[in-house]
Amino acid sequence: MEDLQQRVRTVWWEEDAQGAIVCMLDQSLLPQQVVYLELRHEQAVADAIATLKVRGAPAIGVSAALGMALALHRLVQVHSTQGSALLTSTQMREHLSAVGMMLGHTRPTAVNLFWAIERMQRCADRALGEQVSPQQVAQALVNEAHTIAAEDVAACLKMGEYGAALIEDGATLLTHCNAGALATAGLGTALAPIYIAHRQGKQVHVFVDETRPILQGARLTAWELQQEGIPLTLITDSMAGHFMHHGGIKAVFVGADRVAANGDVANKIGTYSVAVLAHAHRIPFYVVAPCSTIDLSLASGELIPIEQRAAEEVTSVRGTQVAPTGVHVANPAFDVTPNMYVNAIITECGIARPPYDVSLHQLCAENK
Amino acid sequence: MEDLQQRVRTVWWEEDAQGAIVCMLDQSLLPQQVVYLELRHEQAVADAIATLKVRGAPAIGVSAALGMALALHRLVQVHSTQGSALLTSTQMREHLSAVGMMLGHTRPTAVNLFWAIERMQRCADRALGEQVSPQQVAQALVNEAHTIAAEDVAACLKMGEYGAALIEDGATLLTHCNAGALATAGLGTALAPIYIAHRQGKQVHVFVDETRPILQGARLTAWELQQEGIPLTLITDSMAGHFMHHGGIKAVFVGADRVAANGDVANKIGTYSVAVLAHAHRIPFYVVAPCSTIDLSLASGELIPIEQRAAEEVTSVRGTQVAPTGVHVANPAFDVTPNMYVNAIITECGIARPPYDVSLHQLCAENK
Repeated sequence: MEDLQQRVRTVWWEEDAQGAIVCMLDQSLLPQQVVYLELRHEQAVADAIATLKVRGAPAIGVSAALGMALALHRLVQVHSTQGSALLTSTQMREHLSAVGMMLGHTRPTAVNLFWAIERMQRCADRALGEQVSPQQVAQALVNEAHTIAAEDVAACLKMGEYGAALIEDGATLLTHCNAGALATAGLGTALAPIYIAHRQGKQVHVFVDETRPILQGARLTAWELQQEGIPLTLITDSMAGHFMHHGGIKAVFVGADRVAANGDVANKIGTYSVAVLAHAHRIPFYVVAPCSTIDLSLASGELIPIEQRAAEEVTSVRGTQVAPTGVHVANPAFDVTPNMYVNAIITECGIARPPYDVSLHQLCAENK
Repeated sequence: MEDLQQRVRTVWWEEDAQGAIVCMLDQSLLPQQVVYLELRHEQAVADAIATLKVRGAPAIGVSAALGMALALHRLVQVHSTQGSALLTSTQMREHLSAVGMMLGHTRPTAVNLFWAIERMQRCADRALGEQVSPQQVAQALVNEAHTIAAEDVAACLKMGEYGAALIEDGATLLTHCNAGALATAGLGTALAPIYIAHRQGKQVHVFVDETRPILQGARLTAWELQQEGIPLTLITDSMAGHFMHHGGIKAVFVGADRVAANGDVANKIGTYSVAVLAHAHRIPFYVVAPCSTIDLSLASGELIPIEQRAAEEVTSVRGTQVAPTGVHVANPAFDVTPNMYVNAIITECGIARPPYDVSLHQLCAENK
């Protein structure tokens, strides 16, 4: 298991003589190229999130946290090397506020982004209230980002253990998009139960939806499962129904970008179709997500903002145009699966079952 | 309407000083390049069918018929220019039998292929029984192929008229793959009702599934509808459910590669998912296909052979690799939609409704 996390290192913090670095695997180049980015400015972190160099709700949260830490670390360093007057609390607060705004504008749907930014701002407020040095405030932010990442690692393991109990030996499963190690700082959300079941010695076989338009399934999930030696069959999204009918699929595992208080789930476009198809074939449909993905402030999924992305993602594939020029395109990056299609929501605090407006509140209360 | 058929000319017969030519638009290059192929050998016709340069059940039937005619035309010409002894009936019969076998091995699912080959063989048998010259036998085959193409043109118009009656003014529709002018010698099957409704002055808007892996929706249907000035929105296959839920889709129209006696429908992979999703959203799901696509010899869709195609169609898109090397892939080119999901089957002889084992028999009997 350690092996997988070493091979698939999503986003982390480093420092060298020049300063701090947010390092990340450039997922937009996978699987053909394994390239690590060294980002030394918070703007570069924001760009990396917006252009899907890093993606997956928990990984976006960790990246934003590291970006906030980088922003203050950099500001403190610039001030000290320039020999300027000591940074004031107001300057630091305003800087973090602006950086939080910038990072918050990268992607609207994954709630972990806003959750991480707010958590970092609360951490800064606490440190600033303690009247410590700017260096110590910056270090507090670095520590908080490390904590968020470490909590994510731990949450993935817990979700994996809870979810693995739902996987029988010999099971054929289906997943959509990538909710694996690449989507988190740890083992993944939807793939964590599969990794844990595999480690427990259970035979599993995973049908992987390629997940157009960005092909996270073909590029990322297939790659991850290959790295871990888990048997898989890559299919186009349109084949999911056919293989539910004929392929003996026993359960569907997907991640989430935001879960509303009633259990409605925003996740990668196509998840709703998979959920309806699973329902029609009486196949359990499981959502795996940490509590940081649950947004109790939204009563239902209809209130979740859905990111609309560029037409080019549909009209071309990896730079090759596949549709006629000028064609009208719709490209919502996510859809919302109503709670009636969700058999369980697997979190690090346990498994929520319907009615979710009760069970999710209980889990989140226990988590605090 | 004439305009569309002139702009979108799928497959036809020509002759020049060197001999006969089967001409076709190379659909594998659309929409980026509009290239016409001039095929002077039946083997080239078979290759064009196998490599999807021409596709769509009725167009495959017409291409096979033209290929049979080309084969005999060429043989007769070779013999006459070589001054050989007059071709015997046995030689012609054996040649056509071998060519029929070759053409029949190109693609297993579309029944129009076998229907056309057999029809051409019956035509040859009739001509050979009349003790006419080899040139006259060859001409009889050319005429029969022209007749098949002309019947297809007429059938498309009739299907269009029957189907247009099911389309309300202002309707938003959804289609999968390409069952338009490019899939036939005429206006198309599934798109014919849409073209006719548009000509009748009805406002229509078409959601077009891109239809991975070969992208017939993005490349062919979007292009055709653009040519005809019909408003469309191109979506990935995974978005169909989302837009059924939110996009006001009033009906789904698809073609068919083979319809069994009980109304089960083999069509492009992904059709089954679309049908189940339409059913879940109470959206009528219509199949449009000429009687030549109905195979009364098969009691149910489970007996329809499903073509399995190369993994590379899934692991790469238009030559660009998108999945890790060595990944296991499933690539069935078609799936079977059980009759319970099919609201009507629109043919050139009228509209069949459940129970199809009764209604399809009646329609086919009337057609004879």
